[in-house]
Amino acid sequence: MKDYVIELEKPDFEVRTDLAVEERESFPGDGGEIAGVSLREWHEEDSCVKMTEVKILDEQGARAMRKPKGTYLTLEADQLAKKDEDFHEEVAAELSRHIRRLMEGLLGAKAKTPAEYKILAVGLGNSQVTPDSLGPEVVGNLQVTRHLEGQYGAGFLKGRNLPSLSGIVPGVMAQTGMETAEILRGIIKETKPDILIAIDALAARSIRRLGTTIQLTDTGIHPGSGVGNHRHGLTRESLGIPVLSIGVPTVVGAAAIVQDTISALIQVLSKHASTQGMGQYVEDLDPDEQYLLIRELLEPEFGSLFVTPPNIDETIVQLSFTISEGIHKAIFA
Amino acid sequence: MKDYVIELEKPDFEVRTDLAVEERESFPGDGGEIAGVSLREWHEEDSCVKMTEVKILDEQGARAMRKPKGTYLTLEADQLAKKDEDFHEEVAAELSRHIRRLMEGLLGAKAKTPAEYKILAVGLGNSQVTPDSLGPEVVGNLQVTRHLEGQYGAGFLKGRNLPSLSGIVPGVMAQTGMETAEILRGIIKETKPDILIAIDALAARSIRRLGTTIQLTDTGIHPGSGVGNHRHGLTRESLGIPVLSIGVPTVVGAAAIVQDTISALIQVLSKHASTQGMGQYVEDLDPDEQYLLIRELLEPEFGSLFVTPPNIDETIVQLSFTISEGIHKAIFA
Amino acid sequence: MKDYVIELEKPDFEVRTDLAVEERESFPGDGGEIAGVSLREWHEEDSCVKMTEVKILDEQGARAMRKPKGTYLTLEADQLAKKDEDFHEEVAAELSRHIRRLMEGLLGAKAKTPAEYKILAVGLGNSQVTPDSLGPEVVGNLQVTRHLEGQYGAGFLKGRNLPSLSGIVPGVMAQTGMETAEILRGIIKETKPDILIAIDALAARSIRRLGTTIQLTDTGIHPGSGVGNHRHGLTRESLGIPVLSIGVPTVVGAAAIVQDTISALIQVLSKHASTQGMGQYVEDLDPDEQYLLIRELLEPEFGSLFVTPPNIDETIVQLSFTISEGIHKAIFA
Amino acid sequence: MKDYVIELEKPDFEVRTDLAVEERESFPGDGGEIAGVSLREWHEEDSCVKMTEVKILDEQGARAMRKPKGTYLTLEADQLAKKDEDFHEEVAAELSRHIRRLMEGLLGAKAKTPAEYKILAVGLGNSQVTPDSLGPEVVGNLQVTRHLEGQYGAGFLKGRNLPSLSGIVPGVMAQTGMETAEILRGIIKETKPDILIAIDALAARSIRRLGTTIQLTDTGIHPGSGVGNHRHGLTRESLGIPVLSIGVPTVVGAAAIVQDTISALIQVLSKHASTQGMGQYVEDLDPDEQYLLIRELLEPEFGSLFVTPPNIDETIVQLSFTISEGIHKAIFA
Repeated sequence: MKDYVIELEKPDFEVRTDLAVEERESFPGDGGEIAGVSLREWHEEDSCVKMTEVKILDEQGARAMRKPKGTYLTLEADQLAKKDEDFHEEVAAELSRHIRRLMEGLLGAKAKTPAEYKILAVGLGNSQVTPDSLGPEVVGNLQVTRHLEGQYGAGFLKGRNLPSLSGIVPGVMAQTGMETAEILRGIIKETKPDILIAIDALAARSIRRLGTTIQLTDTGIHPGSGVGNHRHGLTRESLGIPVLSIGVPTVVGAAAIVQDTISALIQVLSKHASTQGMGQYVEDLDPDEQYLLIRELLEPEFGSLFVTPPNIDETIVQLSFTISEGIHKAIFA
Repeated sequence: MKDYVIELEKPDFEVRTDLAVEERESFPGDGGEIAGVSLREWHEEDSCVKMTEVKILDEQGARAMRKPKGTYLTLEADQLAKKDEDFHEEVAAELSRHIRRLMEGLLGAKAKTPAEYKILAVGLGNSQVTPDSLGPEVVGNLQVTRHLEGQYGAGFLKGRNLPSLSGIVPGVMAQTGMETAEILRGIIKETKPDILIAIDALAARSIRRLGTTIQLTDTGIHPGSGVGNHRHGLTRESLGIPVLSIGVPTVVGAAAIVQDTISALIQVLSKHASTQGMGQYVEDLDPDEQYLLIRELLEPEFGSLFVTPPNIDETIVQLSFTISEGIHKAIFA
Repeated sequence: MKDYVIELEKPDFEVRTDLAVEERESFPGDGGEIAGVSLREWHEEDSCVKMTEVKILDEQGARAMRKPKGTYLTLEADQLAKKDEDFHEEVAAELSRHIRRLMEGLLGAKAKTPAEYKILAVGLGNSQVTPDSLGPEVVGNLQVTRHLEGQYGAGFLKGRNLPSLSGIVPGVMAQTGMETAEILRGIIKETKPDILIAIDALAARSIRRLGTTIQLTDTGIHPGSGVGNHRHGLTRESLGIPVLSIGVPTVVGAAAIVQDTISALIQVLSKHASTQGMGQYVEDLDPDEQYLLIRELLEPEFGSLFVTPPNIDETIVQLSFTISEGIHKAIFA
Repeated sequence: MKDYVIELEKPDFEVRTDLAVEERESFPGDGGEIAGVSLREWHEEDSCVKMTEVKILDEQGARAMRKPKGTYLTLEADQLAKKDEDFHEEVAAELSRHIRRLMEGLLGAKAKTPAEYKILAVGLGNSQVTPDSLGPEVVGNLQVTRHLEGQYGAGFLKGRNLPSLSGIVPGVMAQTGMETAEILRGIIKETKPDILIAIDALAARSIRRLGTTIQLTDTGIHPGSGVGNHRHGLTRESLGIPVLSIGVPTVVGAAAIVQDTISALIQVLSKHASTQGMGQYVEDLDPDEQYLLIRELLEPEFGSLFVTPPNIDETIVQLSFTISEGIHKAIFA
């Protein structure tokens, strides 16, 4: 798919994915090497969860992947979208190990056990719009502890080997009139957590990813990511503390559907004997001509529209429990 | 757009609209006559609401429009999607007049004033999925009265010139395990209303319709309509009482986006000198070849996916108030 | 507490409890026998859940207990109100055994395994008022199956050894204008379930019961019970099928607080040397004088007010999962 | 009611009201003067809303009233709890005038028109517990504007004569693990509003106040006030900017019911010939003896329990619209 290359330079009809694993797949010759990007795929023992780790190692990799340097871990399983308590228990356990490892990487020598962490969890997204409500739901499920220190005295948490966990659901800019980054920066300065765990609903490229993938990263949330399209990033640079982010794709941008249709149409035209020349012809267009072609097909309104399945409410209920359980298991040792 | 013709015969990739006004627009030579269908457009005095009445007069019209005989009235205004209390007040007043006229048509000589009606309002759709929650929200806003007769004695409502209004939010089949038609048939037999007012979120063909159009019909709700795709119809035949339905498009089917892209691509190919031949070529394909082409482009999952804007929560809040106000004004004289 | 006797005859300031176990406790000489009522208390092996079975055996017992003949089973544990997943898993298992036993008793020879049951679950109460939202929450958690037969063909459920489960959240009379009994009677006639499982938030006498007790009965829901005070009963007589009800006390009537205060004040007056005579005096008042006294203290508005703890939202989340899990385990063998 | 005096010194069974007008009423000889407190009652022209202004002028008044120095304005009308759109429109207009006047008082010469204000609205309370959800509902209704400056460029708001309005729903400490004061202090430092408007559900002494009174103050929110019992105040001192608070009583503390019952019992005992001596006797007890008496009657759990009516959901819907409309009218000139 050459189109991607075009988009990089002409971002006005960017078909975006929040998943590094999808960005990686978009490169031609799927198995090939990309300079500055490492890829590892595996299954944990006895697990049907497919793990993929994409590491963006340097600036060259970051440019190619259109994502900042860092680690992007995905857990994938078709059953994730379904109601199966035992399976979700299993995924939560697996998730917790990866959360803990990433936290250790981010906090370095600062902490020895999770119980010494001071963690702020933030549920990003709009709780009033179902596919954007994953973050608020997860934080709603969390068992916060930070206030117990104030209620029962200093040492209360340490004495019980409990971490200090706080949580916030800031709302989206159309509700608050404020950038999420502003709200969080203020809260972080006042309450001084060591690390932010940000939970967010993501946009994928492919509809088969919806509700079947969990992505963990140590790179923060970047402008233009998430269903709600944050303008300002939530990163160590902007917030002053490291950010571990956990996301699940719940929507596909409408523009992605359009682009897929065009790609498919070209392939179809190329396959059928009668239209073979045309498909080839379109494929042979130079980037500027392709750009012009796609531009005319993409109505400007499409940029903000998203595609989502009708049972998204059940997916959100299931996955928000899996993720909150994963966080609990990771930090309540 | 010839494709529509194809779809009529090969319904497996039906690109559907719940709006008669859109179905009407899909015919070639937009202004032309369709046998068995009448069309009237106007503005009420001093109003910026565009009114359109499509009447399907006979079986021929029904076949052409793929909708049953009856009256389809739309109120259209771009401001509907916005927060403007005075405007919503105005639309509610206009809506109420049309609701009352349709009710009089459906109930005939049975009732002389709205206060003699026994009305059951049903909020169709899934309250947990934002774009499907219009019906539940409207019914939640309604001021029911039927129980007052039981609480304060027979004659209470008549004495106050009040109609008997009851309301139900039955939920969707994935939540109840029951067809909505089964639930309503049971309730209607027990509580004996004269008329059902069904409020539902609709699927449109065009994204510019989302939140800007209200459709009133006297034909009931038909299989495959609504965001949630009811399998069994809610009609005078299936329920035993006349059905007035009120709907607002809140989603566009993902398949519609695909089809629009293909149409646009063909047009673009036809326009550009270099590809002119191809567009023409595709347009000239016979229906079976076109069918094959589109079939390959439409992934089967697309059938159930829908496209919706990110601020759909605000649209639902606004329009559910406008509609509940319209119903109140229509029946509380 | 003699007052209860008064209330039986002068029901206008009835201080009511929906729990048979509390009604039983209100009799003087707690351990004593009551004609027509049997009492059994035990712990299941290795369980910290206290079980109590009150059986009302005949009309005499029914009059004394002010509740209809039948079995009233309670599971009690202080931890129920708390967030402890393992414990809730344990209680759900225990609950499921009792649900199954009561169902077998109600359905008799009709069914051999739960998979042959056709069950309708109804979530009573107002989903918009937190302490009354238990029933709607439980039904929202249930995995209904009845519609799968329609979607995948007759025999689908039997082939998979699955029961036919449907669910409804009818809303309260102030929202629907209809009696819950009317709505259910209609749905039952149309969909023909074998048994109704009714889940409801209950009113207790004692605040320490709030969120710590689950009551199961085979007698249906009776007028005046539940937080929302149903006027018409939901019983085998009114609905035509047996009713298993599951309830958790989430409120105490404000009148109960008033009565407790008076009782306590009298006791205090009796204990203190200086006021001993007075307490005695009040206690010695004949029922009519006591009645007059209490009547003056009870403001009429108190009848509808209820007392509830501020963390009732967490209690509802916890217990609705425990109960939906209990139902799942009982019927999905 | 002497008891109040006791409570001041022995705060462990404080029966609290958030309404200055109720505190004022609790003084013996209702019309009498209290040093350091001024009282004014009136009706605006053609309005059925009863206005009361209590001004606490100095430290002596503050001690007597157990509330800080400042202005406490109440709007009272029985219809407030009911659904009557025209009336709510009227109250919103009246409310807006008082909000504007208080804002002008708090901001002094700083601003000339509301359009120059930078306002942060905070919805206090727990959105998951119906009687505590007033604040979150009001802020959910508000039309924020602050972000438009960022989206459409500096000068956008000024050019349209719009104030900068932002809003936040911070959640309660059991959900966030943080003091609301911490969260707000952080957000205020980052976003620099001129004034905070805090909306909160209040606790009243008398059940007839529930949903029928709106209180406006210029003194901030103080520890122990609100349904959720904030521990740390939200005041100009703690936050750095002036605080205008708007509240509606939605609960009565259970302890208030107990105390009312005792007072009423004593009165009853005093009235009846046969028990006249006792009532007198109890009234004549010295404060310490009374203290002992009441202490024994108040179960410690009562402190956190609250009393609320079953239709509190409707009250919240009505009043949250009235208040958000009042704020809109006050600042969008």
